[in-house]
Amino acid sequence: MVKRYLLAPGPTAIPPEVLLKMAEPIIHHRNPIFETVVAEVRDGLKWLFGTKNEVLLFASSGTGAMEGAVTNMLSPGDKAICVRSGKFGERWAEICQAYGIEAINIDVEWGEELDPADVERALKANPDVKAVYTQATETSTGMRFPTREIAAIVRDYPAIMVVDGITGVGVFDLPMDAWGIDILISGSQKALMLPPGLAFAGVSDKAWELNKTSKCPKFYFSWAKELKNLQKNQTNFTPAISLIIGLNASLKILREEGLENVYRRNELLAKATREGAKALGLKVFGKNPSPAVTAICAPEGIDGQDIYKTLWKKYNVTGAGGQGQLKGKAFRIATLGYAEKYDVLTAIAALEFALRDLGYQFVVGKGVAAAMEVLKDM
Amino acid sequence: MVKRYLLAPGPTAIPPEVLLKMAEPIIHHRNPIFETVVAEVRDGLKWLFGTKNEVLLFASSGTGAMEGAVTNMLSPGDKAICVRSGKFGERWAEICQAYGIEAINIDVEWGEELDPADVERALKANPDVKAVYTQATETSTGMRFPTREIAAIVRDYPAIMVVDGITGVGVFDLPMDAWGIDILISGSQKALMLPPGLAFAGVSDKAWELNKTSKCPKFYFSWAKELKNLQKNQTNFTPAISLIIGLNASLKILREEGLENVYRRNELLAKATREGAKALGLKVFGKNPSPAVTAICAPEGIDGQDIYKTLWKKYNVTGAGGQGQLKGKAFRIATLGYAEKYDVLTAIAALEFALRDLGYQFVVGKGVAAAMEVLKDM
Repeated sequence: MVKRYLLAPGPTAIPPEVLLKMAEPIIHHRNPIFETVVAEVRDGLKWLFGTKNEVLLFASSGTGAMEGAVTNMLSPGDKAICVRSGKFGERWAEICQAYGIEAINIDVEWGEELDPADVERALKANPDVKAVYTQATETSTGMRFPTREIAAIVRDYPAIMVVDGITGVGVFDLPMDAWGIDILISGSQKALMLPPGLAFAGVSDKAWELNKTSKCPKFYFSWAKELKNLQKNQTNFTPAISLIIGLNASLKILREEGLENVYRRNELLAKATREGAKALGLKVFGKNPSPAVTAICAPEGIDGQDIYKTLWKKYNVTGAGGQGQLKGKAFRIATLGYAEKYDVLTAIAALEFALRDLGYQFVVGKGVAAAMEVLKDM
Repeated sequence: MVKRYLLAPGPTAIPPEVLLKMAEPIIHHRNPIFETVVAEVRDGLKWLFGTKNEVLLFASSGTGAMEGAVTNMLSPGDKAICVRSGKFGERWAEICQAYGIEAINIDVEWGEELDPADVERALKANPDVKAVYTQATETSTGMRFPTREIAAIVRDYPAIMVVDGITGVGVFDLPMDAWGIDILISGSQKALMLPPGLAFAGVSDKAWELNKTSKCPKFYFSWAKELKNLQKNQTNFTPAISLIIGLNASLKILREEGLENVYRRNELLAKATREGAKALGLKVFGKNPSPAVTAICAPEGIDGQDIYKTLWKKYNVTGAGGQGQLKGKAFRIATLGYAEKYDVLTAIAALEFALRDLGYQFVVGKGVAAAMEVLKDM
C-alpha cells in the first residue's frame, strides 16, 4: 500500500469532491447550464481577487495570462519595468523581449527583499514607462514581495501595476481594488486546488484604458474579446469546461471557509514548516518567505536534490527541488491549496526520515514538535 | 430520472473510464511517472497523426495551435493562402490578419466543394506564398474538404500545407507523412473523447525548416521550445496534467479498436445519420458531408434553432444549432468520438419526436428504420 502526499508548489492536491465533480459527464458550453456555472465563477473570482471588475478566464497555464498582460497592454517599442528575483520574475522580461517591449529590469538578488523605493526611482527615471511587472511571490525562491507598497507607488504614475499572483492569490490577501493592482494573474493548479490548464487575469479600469492603445499582435489571448464574451457568461474560444466546473466547486469550498480563515491557515502552515525546519538546524531561504511555498536550504554536505528525491521516492512526499540558482542548494515544501495541519506534520516527519537516511545529525522528532507548537491552536 | 446524450461537435461524450482516470489524485509533472505518460502519449499521437515526427501538445483550445501554426511559421508581411468556407476556415484569415500576414483568401460558398485546382492557381499566381491554410472538415457546415488532393499540389511548392484537423483527426484518415501534410492541428474535445483544454500540432520537417525563418512574435506558443521539451518528455510550461493522463487512456482505447475500425465506425455512423434524416424528408447540408458532424437543413416553416432546442430541452439529446449563415436554417448532429450505433438511433428517434412536436408531417419510425438499415452489420 502506498499513500502519496503532494506538497509541491503546483499542482497542489485536489479535493476528492472536486475531482469527482469534474468526472461527471461533460456538458456542452454553449448552453444555459454551463452559463450558470460561468456566472457563479465570475462572482467567485471577483470575490477572491477583491475587485468589482471582471476576472478573465483562459484555457492555458498561467504563463498564457502573463503573456496577455504584456500583449494586451503594450505596443512594440514601449517601455516596462520588470522586477526580477527568480525564475518566474525573469519570465516577465522574456515576454517583453519576445514582443519588442523595452524591459527596464530591477534585479534583486535571489532571496533578498525588494525595496519599493527602487521601483519609484525607476519610474521617475523613465516617465514613459507604461507598465510595472511584479510578483506577489516567487515560486522558485519562496519569497514574498511588497505588493501593497509597490502598488501604492505605481498608482500615482500613468503606468499600470501588474502582479503575477500565480502562487499568491488565495494564499494571502491581494485585494486588487483596495490596493490599486491593475492586473492580477493566477492559475488553477495552486490555491484553487485544480489541475493546471486554467489561467486568470483580473483587470482594472486603468488597465482597460491602456488596452485601447495596445498594438502588440494577439489572437488567442485577446482580452477585449474575452471580456465581451464573459459578460454574456461565455468565452471567446472553447473553454476548459471541466476545469471551470471544478473551479466553481473549489471557489465554494474557499467561500465556506472564508477568506480570512484561508489566509490564516496558509500563514500558520508555512510558519509551522519554517519552524519545523529550523528546529532541525536547517535554514529557511530568503529574507521574507512566502506562505505559499517554503524553500529550505540543504545542510552542508547534503545535496538538496537528494533530499527532494528521498522525500519523494522513499517517503512518498512530493515537494520540489531547488530551481535555477538554488538547484542542489535547496528544496521546497509547499503548503498552499488543499493542505492543513496534518499535512505539514507529514512533510516534516518525512523530512526527518530523509535527513536521517542522508546522514544528517539531529534529534529525531524535534522538527515535528516545533511544527506542532505552531499548529496547536489551529 | 434524466439521461442525457451528448452528440455535439465538441465537446463529445467522454468514456467513464477516462473520466475516472482523470479523477485519480493528481501527480506532479516534473517527475518520471508523468514523463512515462508523456512518452506513451508521444508515441500514440505519432500513430494517430501518421507521422514519424513529434506531435506538439499545448494547454489551450484548438485555436491556440492554429495561432501557433501562423506565428511559428511566418513573418509579418508574408503571404499565405487561406481557404474559407465556414466559421472556422475564416479563423485562419483572422489569425493572419492579427499578425500582419497577407491572406490570399479562397472563398468557397458554404456547403460547396473546394476545387483543388483553385489552390494551384493561387499558388502559381503568388509564388511567394509561404503557407496554405486549410481544413479537413468544417464544423460549422459539416463539410469535408479534399485534403489529400490539396496536399499533393502544395508539396511541389515551397509553401507548407497546414490542415485544421480539429474535427478530422481520429474521425477519418489524415496520414501526415503519406499525404505530405506539413502541419496537422487537433484538439482534445473531439475524436479524442476528452474535455477541451489540450491542442495538438503535428509538424513536418519542411515546416520545421520554415520555422527557422519565422519572425512573428510568440512566447506561450513557441513551438521550437516546446519541441525541445517534448523530446525530454516534458512541456515548456506547466502542462494540463489531468488531460494528458486522460489522453493516454483515450489513445489506448483507439489503439485497441484499431484506426481502420475507428474510421469505418465514424463513416457508418454519419451515413446512418444522413440516411435517417433523408428518410424523414430532410435535406443534408453540403455537397460532401463530413463523417464528424452532419448538418441537417430544417424543413420549410420550421426554425432550425427550434429543432436543436427541442432535441436538447425536451428529448435530452444535445446536438448543435446552425452556426453563422446556417443559424435557424440547419441544426447539427455529431457522431464523432465516443459514439456507436445506438447513439445514432437515439439521435434520430429524438429528432422524430422533436419534428412531430413542431408540426412536421412524416411517418414515425421511418428515420430510425433507415438508420438501422445502414447500421445492421456494424
